[in-house]
Amino acid sequence: MFFASDNTSGVAPQIMAAMVRANEGYMKSYGADAIMARVRARIRALFEAPEAEVHLVATGTAANALSLALITQPWAAVFAHETAHIAVDECGAPEFYTGGAKLIGIPGEHGKVTPEGLSRALGSIGESGVHGVQRGCLSLTNVTEAGTVYTPAEIAALTALAKARGLPCHLDGARFANALVATGATPAEMTWKAGIDVLSFGGTKNGCMGVEAVVLFDPSKAWELELRRKRAGHLFSKHRFLSAQFEAYLEGDLWLTLAQNANAMGQSLVQGLARVPGASLRHPAPANMLFPWLAPGTNARAAERGAQYYAMQEGAREYARFVASWSTTQDDVDALISALCP
Amino acid sequence: MFFASDNTSGVAPQIMAAMVRANEGYMKSYGADAIMARVRARIRALFEAPEAEVHLVATGTAANALSLALITQPWAAVFAHETAHIAVDECGAPEFYTGGAKLIGIPGEHGKVTPEGLSRALGSIGESGVHGVQRGCLSLTNVTEAGTVYTPAEIAALTALAKARGLPCHLDGARFANALVATGATPAEMTWKAGIDVLSFGGTKNGCMGVEAVVLFDPSKAWELELRRKRAGHLFSKHRFLSAQFEAYLEGDLWLTLAQNANAMGQSLVQGLARVPGASLRHPAPANMLFPWLAPGTNARAAERGAQYYAMQEGAREYARFVASWSTTQDDVDALISALCP
Amino acid sequence: MFFASDNTSGVAPQIMAAMVRANEGYMKSYGADAIMARVRARIRALFEAPEAEVHLVATGTAANALSLALITQPWAAVFAHETAHIAVDECGAPEFYTGGAKLIGIPGEHGKVTPEGLSRALGSIGESGVHGVQRGCLSLTNVTEAGTVYTPAEIAALTALAKARGLPCHLDGARFANALVATGATPAEMTWKAGIDVLSFGGTKNGCMGVEAVVLFDPSKAWELELRRKRAGHLFSKHRFLSAQFEAYLEGDLWLTLAQNANAMGQSLVQGLARVPGASLRHPAPANMLFPWLAPGTNARAAERGAQYYAMQEGAREYARFVASWSTTQDDVDALISALCP
Amino acid sequence: MFFASDNTSGVAPQIMAAMVRANEGYMKSYGADAIMARVRARIRALFEAPEAEVHLVATGTAANALSLALITQPWAAVFAHETAHIAVDECGAPEFYTGGAKLIGIPGEHGKVTPEGLSRALGSIGESGVHGVQRGCLSLTNVTEAGTVYTPAEIAALTALAKARGLPCHLDGARFANALVATGATPAEMTWKAGIDVLSFGGTKNGCMGVEAVVLFDPSKAWELELRRKRAGHLFSKHRFLSAQFEAYLEGDLWLTLAQNANAMGQSLVQGLARVPGASLRHPAPANMLFPWLAPGTNARAAERGAQYYAMQEGAREYARFVASWSTTQDDVDALISALCP
Repeated sequence: MFFASDNTSGVAPQIMAAMVRANEGYMKSYGADAIMARVRARIRALFEAPEAEVHLVATGTAANALSLALITQPWAAVFAHETAHIAVDECGAPEFYTGGAKLIGIPGEHGKVTPEGLSRALGSIGESGVHGVQRGCLSLTNVTEAGTVYTPAEIAALTALAKARGLPCHLDGARFANALVATGATPAEMTWKAGIDVLSFGGTKNGCMGVEAVVLFDPSKAWELELRRKRAGHLFSKHRFLSAQFEAYLEGDLWLTLAQNANAMGQSLVQGLARVPGASLRHPAPANMLFPWLAPGTNARAAERGAQYYAMQEGAREYARFVASWSTTQDDVDALISALCP
Repeated sequence: MFFASDNTSGVAPQIMAAMVRANEGYMKSYGADAIMARVRARIRALFEAPEAEVHLVATGTAANALSLALITQPWAAVFAHETAHIAVDECGAPEFYTGGAKLIGIPGEHGKVTPEGLSRALGSIGESGVHGVQRGCLSLTNVTEAGTVYTPAEIAALTALAKARGLPCHLDGARFANALVATGATPAEMTWKAGIDVLSFGGTKNGCMGVEAVVLFDPSKAWELELRRKRAGHLFSKHRFLSAQFEAYLEGDLWLTLAQNANAMGQSLVQGLARVPGASLRHPAPANMLFPWLAPGTNARAAERGAQYYAMQEGAREYARFVASWSTTQDDVDALISALCP
Repeated sequence: MFFASDNTSGVAPQIMAAMVRANEGYMKSYGADAIMARVRARIRALFEAPEAEVHLVATGTAANALSLALITQPWAAVFAHETAHIAVDECGAPEFYTGGAKLIGIPGEHGKVTPEGLSRALGSIGESGVHGVQRGCLSLTNVTEAGTVYTPAEIAALTALAKARGLPCHLDGARFANALVATGATPAEMTWKAGIDVLSFGGTKNGCMGVEAVVLFDPSKAWELELRRKRAGHLFSKHRFLSAQFEAYLEGDLWLTLAQNANAMGQSLVQGLARVPGASLRHPAPANMLFPWLAPGTNARAAERGAQYYAMQEGAREYARFVASWSTTQDDVDALISALCP
Repeated sequence: MFFASDNTSGVAPQIMAAMVRANEGYMKSYGADAIMARVRARIRALFEAPEAEVHLVATGTAANALSLALITQPWAAVFAHETAHIAVDECGAPEFYTGGAKLIGIPGEHGKVTPEGLSRALGSIGESGVHGVQRGCLSLTNVTEAGTVYTPAEIAALTALAKARGLPCHLDGARFANALVATGATPAEMTWKAGIDVLSFGGTKNGCMGVEAVVLFDPSKAWELELRRKRAGHLFSKHRFLSAQFEAYLEGDLWLTLAQNANAMGQSLVQGLARVPGASLRHPAPANMLFPWLAPGTNARAAERGAQYYAMQEGAREYARFVASWSTTQDDVDALISALCP
């Protein structure tokens, strides 16, 4: 019963096998490996973006912070939901990498930025000439931190507001596969066709060991990204093992298969919650992450029974975060639901 | 014939096997895995340093830059050999992580800082009050970039000069195992007993996939290091795979066994060079890295024959860098020597 | 009718005369002038703080940003009112000087942080271990950006909350003299006796040409401040002219006399507004800055008549900011009130 | 006998008078004053550069660091003489403002970069792809720190080498007027006609109180400079007093008149040294700064007699730095020469 995070799972066997295979013999270092060339080509095809540039790093925080640094001046503002990972879970990495940009937290129900919220934020920053920080970029997250999902149309509506101000747009896709599965959108529809310029394309949470691809749909800053990655210590010498993970991740649509399992188990949890007295969803949960309100005492009981997840309180009410992963089974789900029931 | 770098090698089979084993089941993220606790204990024992703190990162640049940032103020100077990796091969990572510290390159034969050179540098910086940068720290590298090695006594002589000025001392041990094997010193003798406060303890070049341990002999800054690591995007969610590498690396002294092979093959190359007409060593080569002067045309000939290594020129003279690794065989050495011969 | 800001005023004649006097002969540079020694002694006496360290800079932004950098780690949060000058009017200077700290904007009526608001903010940051930014410091502003004033007791209540968390406290005193005049407090009561560790003691807005004193009640970081000031380009070579301004500013309590005029003219404006149809104060205005709501069309009419001030809108309502200065006269006030009347 | 630095002098009376005049009435803040508009026009005319943008700051370190930050990426190298003020006298301000760029100190006789030295440095950096820092910009200083002077042709030869690599060029003109007087060059000849893109145009050392103009011959980065200036706390609210200094400085060629005196007194010192037994110039001294070798005991004797200047040693030899300023008189020179004689 491990539902604390999709990153408490291990590595999908196909990906581990690919890493073992990649270990044969000698290979060029620092991204010059032949596998990386194939990964690049594969991602370009997948995103219908033949010019896109791709760089691999090992953590989501690195992918996000490098992406933001590429499109945000030090004296500018990053517009993002107030609960965004970049705002609350990266110990100030975006500020470090950008050289001191300011994150503007936008409120919005269910973890989603709304056009109204974004318009208000865009109108409140950058209006005082040289005295205030300037507008920098928009950063969205899909799947959101609340487990909800933006459709491509919703993303397009938000990036249109940003682009009307001349701002580039970033998508934190730590759970990109889960968002695609939940919406049925293609990679292109969810990104550049919807106005996204830079994508953090997550692998780690969805069955990889530790790899994320920064995808630049505008390749003009690719060399700057290479320099920033190296300077930050995120260029791997034995880079082939990042490449191998990503190649296996994409091979035969494994990434979507893994996310389909995670989302299916998420939906099974949603259904199971109907059997838990007093349980109700705090946010819509179309993907693999749920935040249910729970009856008093439920968290304590489940913990006693060995369920592992984040138990939280808001005032007197208790709730939980459950995350299903590529490796969650129906048995795991059933066990959790049982643990929650009196 | 792959002698370009020890990082073109793969992963030692014992380490890969440990990673596969670590993939079973669910495990806590972000360094809270049980394997990490064992790694910490093992390193403390190995270094006879029960208070030491240990943090794992995936690249040598990250280990070095984080270490330096911990002990160097933004307005201070890092004293290091002018050819140090931190000075010339990290695209300014130390400057980025420290917030703008200044690296002072100290000249010195065969890649080694001498007491005279260090004294001169220490006397030239920090003498102009508030106008100049202040003295910050000393950073040494062992094995050096020239393939030479410091003995513990040599390190102690240099750190004594630094400590007389109140400066903490860092050791870049990307090839720490090779240095120990070459000198016969113990880990403690080469580090804290010789005045080292912070060690970048390399694994990647010596048979790991991508892991380095930052070892703090003074644990008082451990929490700051945790924050800096996270903020830089170097805290792995699936941290168990860093831990597993390092555990296997240390298990049964594998790390020393691997380095013994690398150094033995390095020495075999030194002997083989005696058969190559016109070849002579540019620097003493007691470990696994050699810089031989070569007769004109040798590099071109060897390249044609498939030898892979760094071929360089100094004025009209040509020379080479050969690096042997944990996986280099006597056959590889013999093949290289043959390729060099007319 | 110049009410846009107290910094559109010139320099008080006594201060200009002191600068002219300081121009005689040669004097040591970079703060070693004899005048600075007297300023230091005078400020120590004034604040009943014989250990306090004093550094002069030329702008309020420099004073604030240097102060914050001294007490805030790059990965930490600065708690301040959401309208604080450091948050909205310094183009990210605190982020630049601290190396990327995060400003947490606390809402609160009339520009004032409340104990409830601060408690909530303190409870929302620093609770997620290494993942989020850490608590850094508290920064208050007196006179606030809304023209309101904290009493020493109010400041003490807020700093007590911060200090319970181990946080140092900064006071942005760009209008420090006006705050003292409005409350009757002594310099010591308003600062270290109320828990303030670092003060930006403003001169520029209150009759100086361009000088602010950073006052460190804990002198242990004085040398670091010297280095940060120099490194930021804020150490003046002809420093005597900063010293001379501050000496004249304090001489015979000129600073308080100037602030008394500014506040008196502010209060005269408050009284005059009673004669302006439809005018009412948006915030209490005990010092020299007022934010009156105005009847529709008032701003346009006053502008036509030559009144200079910031005219603003909130939704359909219009309002204004009037700032009286050391040089504002009763005639100026009367003229403004007339310009506002139909 | 004050020869320690030109910044121990006061303010030229015409400039002080202009500041007093500028104190009348109210004026717009933050550079929107009418005087600044005139200064901008005057500098454009003077430099025959109708598109040039001009920003005033109060210190030379600010002017240099802001200029460099404008043209140097954080991962790039600033090529400058190893004794340059930016390298040794600004406590790392260029590193702070650029976000961690690396200064490459070029050796060269008499404080001057030579084409050979620059070529060598340009060839040694930026050749290792992503691993090393990239080439950033060239920064020259005229008058140099050794008191020598570049002709426009010498500057053009150096900037040509930089521009062949695509690098922008900065001139630290803290003593720009002295360099023009020494060479007879026009402002345009010494700057943009010789390949300079950004100039730190000094006022402080040559009779101003504290003002330097950053002159951008390519105006495309003017807005970025405004933001950087504000963010660094170098935008003055009562900016009129910076403007007034610079207007008076340029009025009737006062700046050149002041520098003519300084240089004439410098040359008078050179002649006087012929009468000092054992004295000889260490570097050519065509402007207002001299570095004479002196007979043993001379410095001590002169100090006893009240002469104020920097006395230095190189090994067993003693030498001195004398700087003449706008206010140095022939009597001052005679007194110093007498003090040096046995």
